[in-house]
Amino acid sequence: MTKWVYSFGGGDAEGAADMRNLLGGKGANLAEMSTLGLPVPPGFTISTDVCNAYFANGQTYPEGMDGQVAEALASVETVVDAKFGDAANPLLVSVRSGGRASMPGMMDTVLNLGLNDETVAGLAALSGDERFAYDSYRRFIQMYADVVLEVDHYYFEEILEIHKESKGLTLDTDLTVEDLKELVEAFKAKVEEQLGTPFPTDPKAQLWGAIGAVFDSWQNERAKVYRRLHDIPEEWGTAVNVQAMVFGNMGETSATGVAFTRNPSTGVRELYGEYLINAQGEDVVAGIRTPQYISKAAREEAGDEEPSMEETLPEVFGQLSEIMTRLESHYRDMQDIEFTVQQGRLWMLQTRSGKRTAPAALKIAVDMADEGLITQAEALGRIDPEALDQLLHPTLDPDAEKNVITRGLPASPGAASGVIVFDADEAERMSHTGQDVILVRIETSPEDIHGMHAAKGILTSRGGMTSHAAVVARGMGRPCVSGAGTLRIDYQAGTLSVLGEELKSGDTITIDGSTGEVMKGVVETINPELSGDFGTLMGWADDVRRMTVRTNAETPQDAQTARDFGAEGIGLCRTEHMFFDAERIMAVREMILSETEGERRTALDKLLPMQRQDFVDIFKIMRGLPVTIRLLDPPLHEFLPKTEDELQEIAETAGVSVANIRKRAQELMEFNPMLGHRGCRLGISYPEIYEMQARAIFEAALAVADETGETVIPEIMIPLVGSKRELEILKARIDAIADDLGVDDAAYIVGTMIELPRAALLAGEIAEEAAFFSFGTNDLTQTTYGLSRDDSASFLEDYIRAGVFERDPFVTLDRDGVGQLVQLAAERGRETRPDIKLGICGEHGGDPASVAFCEDVGLDYVSCSPYRVPIARLAAAQAVLSAAPDRD
Amino acid sequence: MTKWVYSFGGGDAEGAADMRNLLGGKGANLAEMSTLGLPVPPGFTISTDVCNAYFANGQTYPEGMDGQVAEALASVETVVDAKFGDAANPLLVSVRSGGRASMPGMMDTVLNLGLNDETVAGLAALSGDERFAYDSYRRFIQMYADVVLEVDHYYFEEILEIHKESKGLTLDTDLTVEDLKELVEAFKAKVEEQLGTPFPTDPKAQLWGAIGAVFDSWQNERAKVYRRLHDIPEEWGTAVNVQAMVFGNMGETSATGVAFTRNPSTGVRELYGEYLINAQGEDVVAGIRTPQYISKAAREEAGDEEPSMEETLPEVFGQLSEIMTRLESHYRDMQDIEFTVQQGRLWMLQTRSGKRTAPAALKIAVDMADEGLITQAEALGRIDPEALDQLLHPTLDPDAEKNVITRGLPASPGAASGVIVFDADEAERMSHTGQDVILVRIETSPEDIHGMHAAKGILTSRGGMTSHAAVVARGMGRPCVSGAGTLRIDYQAGTLSVLGEELKSGDTITIDGSTGEVMKGVVETINPELSGDFGTLMGWADDVRRMTVRTNAETPQDAQTARDFGAEGIGLCRTEHMFFDAERIMAVREMILSETEGERRTALDKLLPMQRQDFVDIFKIMRGLPVTIRLLDPPLHEFLPKTEDELQEIAETAGVSVANIRKRAQELMEFNPMLGHRGCRLGISYPEIYEMQARAIFEAALAVADETGETVIPEIMIPLVGSKRELEILKARIDAIADDLGVDDAAYIVGTMIELPRAALLAGEIAEEAAFFSFGTNDLTQTTYGLSRDDSASFLEDYIRAGVFERDPFVTLDRDGVGQLVQLAAERGRETRPDIKLGICGEHGGDPASVAFCEDVGLDYVSCSPYRVPIARLAAAQAVLSAAPDRD
Repeated sequence: MTKWVYSFGGGDAEGAADMRNLLGGKGANLAEMSTLGLPVPPGFTISTDVCNAYFANGQTYPEGMDGQVAEALASVETVVDAKFGDAANPLLVSVRSGGRASMPGMMDTVLNLGLNDETVAGLAALSGDERFAYDSYRRFIQMYADVVLEVDHYYFEEILEIHKESKGLTLDTDLTVEDLKELVEAFKAKVEEQLGTPFPTDPKAQLWGAIGAVFDSWQNERAKVYRRLHDIPEEWGTAVNVQAMVFGNMGETSATGVAFTRNPSTGVRELYGEYLINAQGEDVVAGIRTPQYISKAAREEAGDEEPSMEETLPEVFGQLSEIMTRLESHYRDMQDIEFTVQQGRLWMLQTRSGKRTAPAALKIAVDMADEGLITQAEALGRIDPEALDQLLHPTLDPDAEKNVITRGLPASPGAASGVIVFDADEAERMSHTGQDVILVRIETSPEDIHGMHAAKGILTSRGGMTSHAAVVARGMGRPCVSGAGTLRIDYQAGTLSVLGEELKSGDTITIDGSTGEVMKGVVETINPELSGDFGTLMGWADDVRRMTVRTNAETPQDAQTARDFGAEGIGLCRTEHMFFDAERIMAVREMILSETEGERRTALDKLLPMQRQDFVDIFKIMRGLPVTIRLLDPPLHEFLPKTEDELQEIAETAGVSVANIRKRAQELMEFNPMLGHRGCRLGISYPEIYEMQARAIFEAALAVADETGETVIPEIMIPLVGSKRELEILKARIDAIADDLGVDDAAYIVGTMIELPRAALLAGEIAEEAAFFSFGTNDLTQTTYGLSRDDSASFLEDYIRAGVFERDPFVTLDRDGVGQLVQLAAERGRETRPDIKLGICGEHGGDPASVAFCEDVGLDYVSCSPYRVPIARLAAAQAVLSAAPDRD
Repeated sequence: MTKWVYSFGGGDAEGAADMRNLLGGKGANLAEMSTLGLPVPPGFTISTDVCNAYFANGQTYPEGMDGQVAEALASVETVVDAKFGDAANPLLVSVRSGGRASMPGMMDTVLNLGLNDETVAGLAALSGDERFAYDSYRRFIQMYADVVLEVDHYYFEEILEIHKESKGLTLDTDLTVEDLKELVEAFKAKVEEQLGTPFPTDPKAQLWGAIGAVFDSWQNERAKVYRRLHDIPEEWGTAVNVQAMVFGNMGETSATGVAFTRNPSTGVRELYGEYLINAQGEDVVAGIRTPQYISKAAREEAGDEEPSMEETLPEVFGQLSEIMTRLESHYRDMQDIEFTVQQGRLWMLQTRSGKRTAPAALKIAVDMADEGLITQAEALGRIDPEALDQLLHPTLDPDAEKNVITRGLPASPGAASGVIVFDADEAERMSHTGQDVILVRIETSPEDIHGMHAAKGILTSRGGMTSHAAVVARGMGRPCVSGAGTLRIDYQAGTLSVLGEELKSGDTITIDGSTGEVMKGVVETINPELSGDFGTLMGWADDVRRMTVRTNAETPQDAQTARDFGAEGIGLCRTEHMFFDAERIMAVREMILSETEGERRTALDKLLPMQRQDFVDIFKIMRGLPVTIRLLDPPLHEFLPKTEDELQEIAETAGVSVANIRKRAQELMEFNPMLGHRGCRLGISYPEIYEMQARAIFEAALAVADETGETVIPEIMIPLVGSKRELEILKARIDAIADDLGVDDAAYIVGTMIELPRAALLAGEIAEEAAFFSFGTNDLTQTTYGLSRDDSASFLEDYIRAGVFERDPFVTLDRDGVGQLVQLAAERGRETRPDIKLGICGEHGGDPASVAFCEDVGLDYVSCSPYRVPIARLAAAQAVLSAAPDRD
């Protein structure tokens, strides 16, 4: 016969920790602890298979289960030497759900089950506390009626309130035994009134009612929603745990508490926890009494007067310490445990891997590996790469007071305070005077970059996690809150209003880019120090990973930051960002306004030395490492003046009329710039632009080689290629420039972005001309989905809510669609050119799930913004480990 | 030994018509005519294999070729009874290129080869015309020097001019024999001066020089460009034809002419051609003398006085007639021939299939099939489907005078005259007064549609062949010239200026959408009548084709037009066009400006009856045929007011402030609307919009079924789907509306557009929810290429010039890229749902090359604008025939 019920307790168990799927997390761990010989209140687990059978057969139980439950219950009676329903020596039990994945608070629990008018007397006698017994009884009736019988708990609260009022009482604790007895009767009467049948007094009937209710709760609305949100399959089901009750509220030798085997905030190896004498678990949670420290050391460190458990219950403390050490080394992870002391006897109620802060996670992983408890590979697997981001930026002082006025998207981590400035130029000016500034914009554009650089943080009212502001801020390591939709920004008035409150230019605010919070005034921040653990872990990651990690950087500062964070090259150096510089934009605009190729060349000649210097600076910093330079990508109209003043200025400088400039701007205007005259299309139409850039690159490489004696091998990247022919034409021109300068064929390579579906589809042909492919997955996602990153914020929420998107596809690469194209392009590219270098330079290059995809597809490198380099290094290592689980 | 040289002439030949690849078109046909026993001047063809061998081996000839040439030349000497280089009885030859595909004027030719100071005397004696002989000689020197010796022809023209001036002569014909002799000497001296060696006098040396020059011309720049533009592979090579000269200028019994076996303008079966007595081919071309009719009937019909060849050379005319009849039935196509009569003897110089007008092509194909000369399948293959378009629209009277002021793109065929109007409303108003109007816009938008409908033709200064103006105009059958870039349109001044000329509102112009010409004033047009031949051919096409042809239509007029043209259903009924109607746009705007779902529903309730009536009208017209209705697709901001007046109006009607509307417009603004909040994304965000539309469709279907007793089965199409989940959500809502109205499950189907790469990639999943796929290849091309149709005009030309695009990918579907996705989606869709209905509804559905692709992929139908329905019907038939060439 199928085994449906698994007993535990009394130093033995039928289950084990690895039976989590069948017994749920709680049941499996209770069994495991029991087998370890730890003091676990005995009980049994009804398996998740029963849950499935129950719903498959119209909410009936499988054959034979009732016998197995009876047997398991009898075994519990034997272990605790008490009897279910016995008036003198009653066994009371709890009935709890427990699934494979934790679903906190989603499902039902019944405590103190087994109480009735007879057994309550036995409980009173055994505990020597009649009030305790009747209080337990009235709580049981209320809980059972609510959970199992579906009588609204409101009725019981009302009865309790009326009773207290009639007696002139304020607190529940003021209730006497007599009051409680009256309430028990009133509660039972209410149940009978509501249901037409009396409250069940037979403990067996109570038990089956509770088991059914817990299973039923698997299909309640809350649970269904939770499962959908957390991607938990319905067929996992829940187990039901029936366990003998133990009481921490049976006097001064009873207690209850929670503890961690290491400090979950700092990761320090110390027993960390709280307890309460003469209390139940709920009391710790309810916060009516302040819990006390468990260890004396912690109490003394905190300067607390209330005695620690080490002092009040030294023997039990000793047992607990020892058990916790055993549990940690058994589970090979920091444990979060719950315990109860009933009249001097310690009972373990739960153990599980404990949640921890990012710094703690790092320290624990490194320490445990050093202690030999886990392998280095396991240590790498214990860290969520995303969490590293918190370690690299200032954070809000958790003790500081915060006046949160609104909340946007946590677009770029870190916290910063400064005065509100609405204009990028103004931000730059004020920062030069030493003022900390927060740049506040409806949205940002490439023209704001100098202001973003100058600001301590960026706040926008529009745009998603992958808006311009968010992407650029992350790249710079600036905190950013984006898409704070309730903000109303009025540039002309110089005000920012939110929910009736108005702030103006010059007022101070603080933003937390890790949470999306916007606060009035200054909130203190803490500058994190990168401890040695960070370096240690990164070193292990570097040993393991196969893919190289590069960075997306175009300024010397960014390049330096990225190198410091361990970047092994530049995967994307966007040359257009160099064009926005105040000194250069005039020359760029002259070039755009030129009517003839000759005029364009004259303007480009002015840009050449500046662009060359850009490359010289970057080549020097990245000496010895590869640098991939992307030729001009954005449509020319992005560089045109937008304000009246700028128009006037360029008209004067270029010696053309404002009307002419307007006309040219009108000509260049595009309906869908993303799909317009940009990328290599500019190179085809205006050969002289790419020629200038190629010349600047080669001249810079020659100059740096000359100065340092080390060869620089630039990788020139052509954007937005859709066919082999484009690359063929442009590569020929670049080769001609190289020839002209006497640059050797082996001293540079030319490759292409793969950022259009057509490029991916025709990658086999394109590889004939390309020495490398760099997947531009931002644009590839935009085109594959037909979805503008900048415009998607308005309905992204609708899409996530409707379950169309699991995650923002601009944050985590869409394996099903975009991924198909990346894989296909990688395969076809390699077929043509087996040694083709493959990398990714979209924002996805710094997203761990996407990095794992890159490993699966076999890319050679990922490239990401400087502050995400450590994340990518760890993610790349994890990807190797999860692809080869035998390794540890 | 390999055979390199193929002789012909004297009633026999070593080649034949089917050896076109080896001998080129000219050589193959000369051989064929020779074998047929027709009088062809004897000669020989050096094969295209020699061309390849020549270039593969550093411009040297293959072994044995010289012997074969000598042998073939000897054979020519025998046939004509003359001798190459013989002073008394010289053989003269022409040396001409002749490739597999015609490359008119691209390569070199040498005539009269074999002349020198001795043989010229022989020619004079034989012809009895010394002047003729020396004129031929001086022409030969000039031509040979230019083509073979690369001495610029400018030198000879200069000598000739100086000579004429010095003698006071005006015309070349004034030159005496003495003049010509002097010129010959002067020419030879110039050659020697330029080259340092004398002009070659040995005819053999001349011959080898000319052969080499013709082969070399295969690699000249002109030829290379032409090959690239016309997709002619380099390895096809050219053949060289060496042929005995015959002279049509040896007196009154000599003549030269060209003739067609049927009238190439009308297609009527009659000998049609021109000739000149005592002339060479060049004279006919040069136009110095007016050629005369060949047949008496034609002369009389034209009322011409000059005698026809039938009258002057009746015997030769008889021979020619007979030969032409033989040639036509031999080649089974209308022939275009060249002939020369030398002293009463007829020589055939060329035969080939003749070019013809669209009406002639139709008539000839139908007649020949009726005559039993060709099969119906062959007749279908003889018509260029694109040419049919000319038959469906008015055309300019070819005899009318035209004052062309500029030229744009031939965006929609047909010609129309009318007064210039710059505004759509004004166009509508004026057309109501009976005035013919040409709507002139910088570009058009959906708001101009009523004005486009009211206008006789549309002219824009911006936008390509697939701009909004072009697409809509073609759909409506209105002539359109788009992208006339030299036009400067000033709406405020109400003027249109071009090259210094200014026209104003109210001035009359004529546009020809078949050529792109824009003319001042009225140019008379001819209304074509669809003759019985058109119907006959369409009937044959319908018998052959496998795919159904549907139309893209949303107005009753368009639906009716399309049905008249043979559409078998509607493949794309765009519901948003219905929203732009003046009556409705206010309700649409109210809906968009609504803050809550409730307000939106109120506004939608106003639209419901109007939208329902739209469908009632269309269902009635299309009764018995399938109608695919696409739910709302464009982003909402497209419907918002743009002018100040409209803003004011909607503010009053909707009872909101202008500022509020501006704010809403700002919120809805998008950077890349094409990739924005549109298509099914609207349906996900605002369920009530699609619900209203589904309700209108079902209610209309029920009403029409009620009235007519015939069931209407609407096909509801969801646009811009990128994942199965979107379709799942929206289909469930549509099903719920159907349920609500008691519509049977079998009474409608729901499917999706495949217009995003992701949809194509995930077609297997999506097919689980879709009863049909309709490939929206406009958007699929935009996203696959990352190329905005509206913005691509600015660099399309650069791209075609650079050879990146062979053709505009919005006109002809890109098989390599977009086609891969279509094929993959079709395969994956069918794998999931073998009976899934597959069609195409992009503009490509009316493009013959794209229709052929659809046949290859096995789609069930194509859908195109009404005026392209006949084109698609024919193209679909041709696609079947070319896929199964055995059929005829």
